Amino acid sequence: MKPLDVLQQSLHKRVLVEMKGGRSYRGVLDAFDQHLNLVLSAAEEVVNDEVTARPGVTLVRGDSVVFISP
Amino acid sequence: MKPLDVLQQSLHKRVLVEMKGGRSYRGVLDAFDQHLNLVLSAAEEVVNDEVTARPGVTLVRGDSVVFISP
Amino acid sequence: MKPLDVLQQSLHKRVLVEMKGGRSYRGVLDAFDQHLNLVLSAAEEVVNDEVTARPGVTLVRGDSVVFISP
Amino acid sequence: MKPLDVLQQSLHKRVLVEMKGGRSYRGVLDAFDQHLNLVLSAAEEVVNDEVTARPGVTLVRGDSVVFISP
Amino acid sequence: MKPLDVLQQSLHKRVLVEMKGGRSYRGVLDAFDQHLNLVLSAAEEVVNDEVTARPGVTLVRGDSVVFISP
Amino acid sequence: MKPLDVLQQSLHKRVLVEMKGGRSYRGVLDAFDQHLNLVLSAAEEVVNDEVTARPGVTLVRGDSVVFISP
Amino acid sequence: MKPLDVLQQSLHKRVLVEMKGGRSYRGVLDAFDQHLNLVLSAAEEVVNDEVTARPGVTLVRGDSVVFISP
Repeated sequence: MKPLDVLQQSLHKRVLVEMKGGRSYRGVLDAFDQHLNLVLSAAEEVVNDEVTARPGVTLVRGDSVVFISP
Repeated sequence: MKPLDVLQQSLHKRVLVEMKGGRSYRGVLDAFDQHLNLVLSAAEEVVNDEVTARPGVTLVRGDSVVFISP
Repeated sequence: MKPLDVLQQSLHKRVLVEMKGGRSYRGVLDAFDQHLNLVLSAAEEVVNDEVTARPGVTLVRGDSVVFISP
Repeated sequence: MKPLDVLQQSLHKRVLVEMKGGRSYRGVLDAFDQHLNLVLSAAEEVVNDEVTARPGVTLVRGDSVVFISP
Repeated sequence: MKPLDVLQQSLHKRVLVEMKGGRSYRGVLDAFDQHLNLVLSAAEEVVNDEVTARPGVTLVRGDSVVFISP
Repeated sequence: MKPLDVLQQSLHKRVLVEMKGGRSYRGVLDAFDQHLNLVLSAAEEVVNDEVTARPGVTLVRGDSVVFISP
Repeated sequence: MKPLDVLQQSLHKRVLVEMKGGRSYRGVLDAFDQHLNLVLSAAEEVVNDEVTARPGVTLVRGDSVVFISP
C-alpha cells in the first residue's frame, strides 16, 4: 500500500484536513492528485473546534496540507 | 475527477482565493494553470471581511494560494 | 542501507513522527513513499508528552516531517 | 487563456507587484519569464501607499511575488 | 571530493547533526542519501548542550538539516 | 527580452541586491546563473543605508535574492 | 565566468559562509557541489563576531546558505 491509496479509499467520504498555520477543514473528499491538492465538498473550516466558515466546495493546495485523516 | 477540474468548471465564475498570510481575493476566475497561478478579474482584496483594495485584473502566484472556493 | 530501508523495516510497527512546528504523532506505520508521506494507523497526536488527539488513520505529508523514530 | 498571457498583454505597461513580506513595486513591465521573474523600469517601491525608494530598473525574483496587477 | 563523500567516510561513526529550529542530534550515521536524509542509531537529541531525548534509531529528513559534523 | 538579459547587460557594473530578511548588497556583478546565484566584487553589505560589512568578493545564493537593481 | 567558478577558485582556501538565521561559519573550503552543499575543515561557528563553536570538519547544506565570501 502507498500513502495515496488511503486517499483513494476515502474518496466521497468525510475527511479532516489539517493545514499549516493551524486551520483545519472537514469535508467530503471529491478529488485529489499526487501533490495532495484536494477537493472537499460540504467543507467547513474549523479553528479550535469551532466551525468558522462553510466554504462549500473547496480546492485545497497540497503544499499547505499537514495531514489528512479519513 | 482531478482537483484542477474544479477550476475548469469555475472559469468565468466568481471564486474566493485564500492566500498564505491571511489575505483573500474575490473575483472572476479568467485563467489558471497547473501551478495554481490564477487570473482574477473584478478582483477585490478582502481582509477580515472588509474590502481593502480593488486591484481589478490580478495574476495571483500559485505558491501563495492556500485554497480556492468556487 | 539507504534511509528509506529503515522505514521498510518499520512497516506495521509503531513509530514516532516529529513534525515541523512541534507536534508529534505516534502510530503504526502502514505505508510510506519516497517523499516521506506516511500513513499511520491508531495514530495519536502528542504535544508536550500529552496525547491531544486520536485521529486514528492519518496520512502525514512528507514535507512537514522532521524525523521518524522506529 | 493562460495566466502568463495577462503578463504578455501587460508588457511595456505599468503594473503593481505585491511581494511576500509586504512591499510592493510599481513600474513598467519590460520582461518576464515562466518563473514570474520580472523586469520593471521606472520602478517605485511602495510601503503603506508611500513611495519609499525609486530603484529605476529592477529585476524582481519570481518566488517573492504574491500577485501582479496590470 | 564532493560533499557527500564526507558522509561516506563518516558511515558507522558518530556525527553531530544540527537542524533548522535549533535542535541537534548526535548519533552513529548508519545511512544517508543524496537529499541528506540520514539514519542515526544510538541517537540523542541535544538542546543547549543537554540531552533532551534518546530516540535511538532515527530517520532525519534532509530538508531540516543545516549541517552535519563528523 | 527576458529577465536575465538585464543581468547580462549589468555584468561588470555596480548593482544593488536586496535579500530576504532585510539585508542588501552593493557591488560589481561579475557572474550570475539562471538560479540568480550572483558573484559580486567590491561588495558592501548595507543595512538601513549604512555599510555594515565589506566582504569583497561574494557569492550570493539565488534563493535569498528578492530583487536586483542595475 | 559562472558563480560556482568562484568556489572552484576558493577550494582549499578560507571562506566565510553566512547562513539563514544569522549564524556564520569560517573554514577551509574542501568540497562543494551545484546545490552549494559545502564541506569546511577547521570550521568555526561565528555569532556576533565571536567564535561560538569549533565543529572542525562540517558539511553545510546548501539551502541554508545565504552567501559565501572567499
